[in-house]
Amino acid sequence: MTNTSNNNSTRFGLDAERFLSDFHHTTIYGATDKNGIDRQAGSDEHGAVRDWIEEQAVARGFNVVTDEIGNIFALKEWVPGAPFVLVGSHLDSQPLGGRFDGTYGVIAALHAASAVDQAVTDELIAPQTNIAVVDWFNEEGSRFPPSIMGSSVFVGLFDLEKTLQTTDPDGVTVEEALTHTKRRGTAIDLPVAGYAEIHIEQGRRLERAGIPIGVVDRSWYTQKLLVTVTGEQSHTGATLMSDRRDALVAASHVVIMVEELVDDFEPETIVTSVGKFDVEPNSPIVVPRQVDLVVDIRADDKADVLRARTLLLERMDRLATRRSVTIDAEDFDIRPVQRFPEDAVALGEKAAIDEGEESRVMATLAGHDSVALNRVTPSVMLFVPSVDGVSHCEREFTSDEDLVTGLRVLTNLVSRMISGELAEVEPGGSLTE
Amino acid sequence: MTNTSNNNSTRFGLDAERFLSDFHHTTIYGATDKNGIDRQAGSDEHGAVRDWIEEQAVARGFNVVTDEIGNIFALKEWVPGAPFVLVGSHLDSQPLGGRFDGTYGVIAALHAASAVDQAVTDELIAPQTNIAVVDWFNEEGSRFPPSIMGSSVFVGLFDLEKTLQTTDPDGVTVEEALTHTKRRGTAIDLPVAGYAEIHIEQGRRLERAGIPIGVVDRSWYTQKLLVTVTGEQSHTGATLMSDRRDALVAASHVVIMVEELVDDFEPETIVTSVGKFDVEPNSPIVVPRQVDLVVDIRADDKADVLRARTLLLERMDRLATRRSVTIDAEDFDIRPVQRFPEDAVALGEKAAIDEGEESRVMATLAGHDSVALNRVTPSVMLFVPSVDGVSHCEREFTSDEDLVTGLRVLTNLVSRMISGELAEVEPGGSLTE
Repeated sequence: MTNTSNNNSTRFGLDAERFLSDFHHTTIYGATDKNGIDRQAGSDEHGAVRDWIEEQAVARGFNVVTDEIGNIFALKEWVPGAPFVLVGSHLDSQPLGGRFDGTYGVIAALHAASAVDQAVTDELIAPQTNIAVVDWFNEEGSRFPPSIMGSSVFVGLFDLEKTLQTTDPDGVTVEEALTHTKRRGTAIDLPVAGYAEIHIEQGRRLERAGIPIGVVDRSWYTQKLLVTVTGEQSHTGATLMSDRRDALVAASHVVIMVEELVDDFEPETIVTSVGKFDVEPNSPIVVPRQVDLVVDIRADDKADVLRARTLLLERMDRLATRRSVTIDAEDFDIRPVQRFPEDAVALGEKAAIDEGEESRVMATLAGHDSVALNRVTPSVMLFVPSVDGVSHCEREFTSDEDLVTGLRVLTNLVSRMISGELAEVEPGGSLTE
Repeated sequence: MTNTSNNNSTRFGLDAERFLSDFHHTTIYGATDKNGIDRQAGSDEHGAVRDWIEEQAVARGFNVVTDEIGNIFALKEWVPGAPFVLVGSHLDSQPLGGRFDGTYGVIAALHAASAVDQAVTDELIAPQTNIAVVDWFNEEGSRFPPSIMGSSVFVGLFDLEKTLQTTDPDGVTVEEALTHTKRRGTAIDLPVAGYAEIHIEQGRRLERAGIPIGVVDRSWYTQKLLVTVTGEQSHTGATLMSDRRDALVAASHVVIMVEELVDDFEPETIVTSVGKFDVEPNSPIVVPRQVDLVVDIRADDKADVLRARTLLLERMDRLATRRSVTIDAEDFDIRPVQRFPEDAVALGEKAAIDEGEESRVMATLAGHDSVALNRVTPSVMLFVPSVDGVSHCEREFTSDEDLVTGLRVLTNLVSRMISGELAEVEPGGSLTE
């Protein structure tokens, strides 16, 4: 035991039932037929759940402000002039997404901050900082790519003006979607003293191990490749098979190549995917002339990603020659391995121990707002288990019991952070660029 | 020689230069960067070229009417009360399509009918029927599926009201597109005495053989299958490869299976394609949950199409089991082999001989308006060569010389038809249903 704090759960007036009722209430905003949600960034449903969280925060005495990229901050200023510990996640979802991804972290943040606020009022904690509950804009990036948008603008990784002009497939800009949902706010100067986030794991490592809490020490190295396969449009009826240069058949081989890349690596060290795939002209009686697709490669080790990329480029070159098509590939959205500060990881572990819960230190394979925040402020990222490891789908599930356990550990963690336990810690940073 | 007619090309006042200039003029309507056209049914560009052909026909003394599904008829009534020989094709194109497909046949029809009209005026031919140049609505079916729409409604194969409510991907109905282009006409009672059409081959059999004219004796048996591959949506980063049920990877295997089906048959006896392929949710960081794709199988012999279909269904079943996805397939747009009447084929051959041109009897692999018309009236379909056999693309090409040769043979054919040479012939019909 390395418990150096006097905080424990009995000091916080957490109302588990109210928390669960608030969390489950959010599923009405963009509810799908099969218990999922469809609440893409800047949609009416997203606007509605954000209005609801603002009402909740105001009712709990928070001062709510929205910044220029639509991030919502619910502020509680205990120490005038002191910086803020931020705690939050995101309320947007993938199309036909799960109801836990992101939303759990925002509702947990509001309840944790409220409980800690009560402890401050009751003089059980002497705060060194202030606190802000945050709902980051557009973490998912499905409607407006790339993902992790609001937090990346907040920390200065993305340019505000350029980001506001990003368009969705219908040509609507981020700025228009924010205006539409009344979340085009104003510049905010918010000194930051740390960031905490809790999220579902979206994998099955915690479930397999039977452990309720994950503490994230690093993110995987990730990169995407925009691949364009160009053949020649022709008639599906009249054109002889030998005269065709079918972009869809070649692109289908690319999809299978991408999946089979993992066979060149140790099991579970790398994941590869094609999620976006657009066929032109996409007419039933025309042999396709072009396919644009996005390859996603992620691994714990940068060298594995680079090797997979090289193998894929070599194989696509041979494929292009074999099938008389051209295949162009362009790197984008490269995200180096990010290390969370050792002391931040240790603090997450301490909070779990203090709450009597077992925890495991682990990498995150997915990107999160915490990965962006960690570049400018010491950040702690907690996970709770995902049943069957599935996410970004309606079947995504975490039990109420696990949700409440996570809330307790998050509350403990936040109480430590506002007490100054990470005050001397440097932000995390890239292991590899 | 079986030339039983006194007609020959010297009897027709064809103006080859004016014909070529009219044909090449049409390429301005929906011109693309690379010498193609993009003139989908009911678009502004399609409306413009149709207005232009109407002006041309009116200037040549034709009476122009439009029917309820937007087919345009330019009528010349020599024998009051007699039925009409129709000659035509279509002015719509695929997206980024070629400038010859369909358009050649309409411009050639107008010039052939005008030349024959002059011969009637000059009392060189005694007409038994009247004539109508036709521009059929929506032969391509890319914007509003299925293809061969206007002619199929005309002959009673498709229901008018249902067809008018067909929508494009933006939800616009056929009726709205017709109204927008001022081509929502009125019911027309037009007794028909035969149909002639000339078209580019869209294959390379004529080019290979060095023969300028094809006479179509049958269409290939064709069918489509709407295939739905359903997996499970998940996170491209966080979901282990072994936990995925990736609909796109499975659908990519289907595309390759479809192509490889032809290996089970004699060369050039069957063609198979996937032209339409839609991924859901199509987000870069989501493993796809569903792909909807359209398989197109065509062969001269119905038995080959059925065997290919059976092989594909068996292989997709095994694939579904292997990859833990579901694959559903639904037959649609089945088009049996259609035989053109023997006497109609013979008449096409005679017209070529009369013009001093070699011809070859052949099947059409593609569908055409003539295949629909042939069900209700004896129909003659002529082909001219396609360079490299490519079609439905900007590179589609036929030389001016071949276009003019085709026009001469078509004019000869039409002069025979209005003289009553197919009067006693029954319509063609299905060889197999």
